Amino acid sequence: MPFYIGLVHYPVYNKRGEVIVSAITNLDLHDLARLARTYGAERFYVINPLIDQQDLIRRIRGHWVGGHGAWYNKDRSEAMSLISVVSTLEEALDEIRVKEETAPILIATDARNDRGETVPYPFVREIVMSHRAAIVLFGTAWGMAKELIRDADYLLEPIMGVSEYNHLSVRTAAAITLDRLFLQN
Amino acid sequence: MPFYIGLVHYPVYNKRGEVIVSAITNLDLHDLARLARTYGAERFYVINPLIDQQDLIRRIRGHWVGGHGAWYNKDRSEAMSLISVVSTLEEALDEIRVKEETAPILIATDARNDRGETVPYPFVREIVMSHRAAIVLFGTAWGMAKELIRDADYLLEPIMGVSEYNHLSVRTAAAITLDRLFLQN
Repeated sequence: MPFYIGLVHYPVYNKRGEVIVSAITNLDLHDLARLARTYGAERFYVINPLIDQQDLIRRIRGHWVGGHGAWYNKDRSEAMSLISVVSTLEEALDEIRVKEETAPILIATDARNDRGETVPYPFVREIVMSHRAAIVLFGTAWGMAKELIRDADYLLEPIMGVSEYNHLSVRTAAAITLDRLFLQN
Repeated sequence: MPFYIGLVHYPVYNKRGEVIVSAITNLDLHDLARLARTYGAERFYVINPLIDQQDLIRRIRGHWVGGHGAWYNKDRSEAMSLISVVSTLEEALDEIRVKEETAPILIATDARNDRGETVPYPFVREIVMSHRAAIVLFGTAWGMAKELIRDADYLLEPIMGVSEYNHLSVRTAAAITLDRLFLQN
């Protein structure tokens, strides 16, 4: 603690392994904002360099935080107010640095197990439970670009269920990750 | 084990506490099918009594299991093939009874803590880890009707994060529930 999450739309891979900017998925914003609120994150950074996508995120956020949605659903408003739109990860890190007066520990996540050396959940739990600021990044599309993972301080081990299958949505993967970091023994 | 999950679209509450049939959310189908596959569920029952909604679910399933989607994304196809469309919970239970030659233990979930006596995760984990068949039900909209919860064998305790806020989406709540049942110590 203090703890942040980020949803990366660039640089991420498409199905063919090419680096792309992914498009916003409305329910990603809602689900991750509600998770951020549930697990006590300070902010939920939505990282997307495209101006029209940023405008879309701000419109969705605005509807729930200041518009009709705030009146319709106060709980949703509370969650969506945690969203902060930034063009790059660097911008999010700068904002955290200013607020926390220290650089946050950068923790990447990936479903694949060939992206580099990983650390187990208990290790990252120690970090987020310490006084140090930390940000956990989740990738959209076919996952974060290798360069971004390489720049992270740590790469969290992939989520494995009871089978070899590990193709979860970013929404459900983020839910499991946060629950494991904050509530598992 | 054997283990089943069900997503209830009727009877559920709307915001005003009236019993309604909720509409299908495409990403609920995808996210819960992928969770079912990840955590080893035998089947994912989508419970909705409306014929047009059932047709919609079958079309989505068909696209991914037998159509273009199966070619495009084999992993998704594998998950979506677990979907079974039924009109009522009773229909799902009948199907399980025939297959397992025993009635499954029926476990309801709810975000609220005023729905009746609840049981903790370790208790339900014992059940799903035993040889008995079990089905865990997740409600859409503002949650399952009280009558349905009353008919269940057990009601699982609500998911609480690190704050008092417990307004997760059914997608992320199902993810956390399954991970806690199958992977937490």
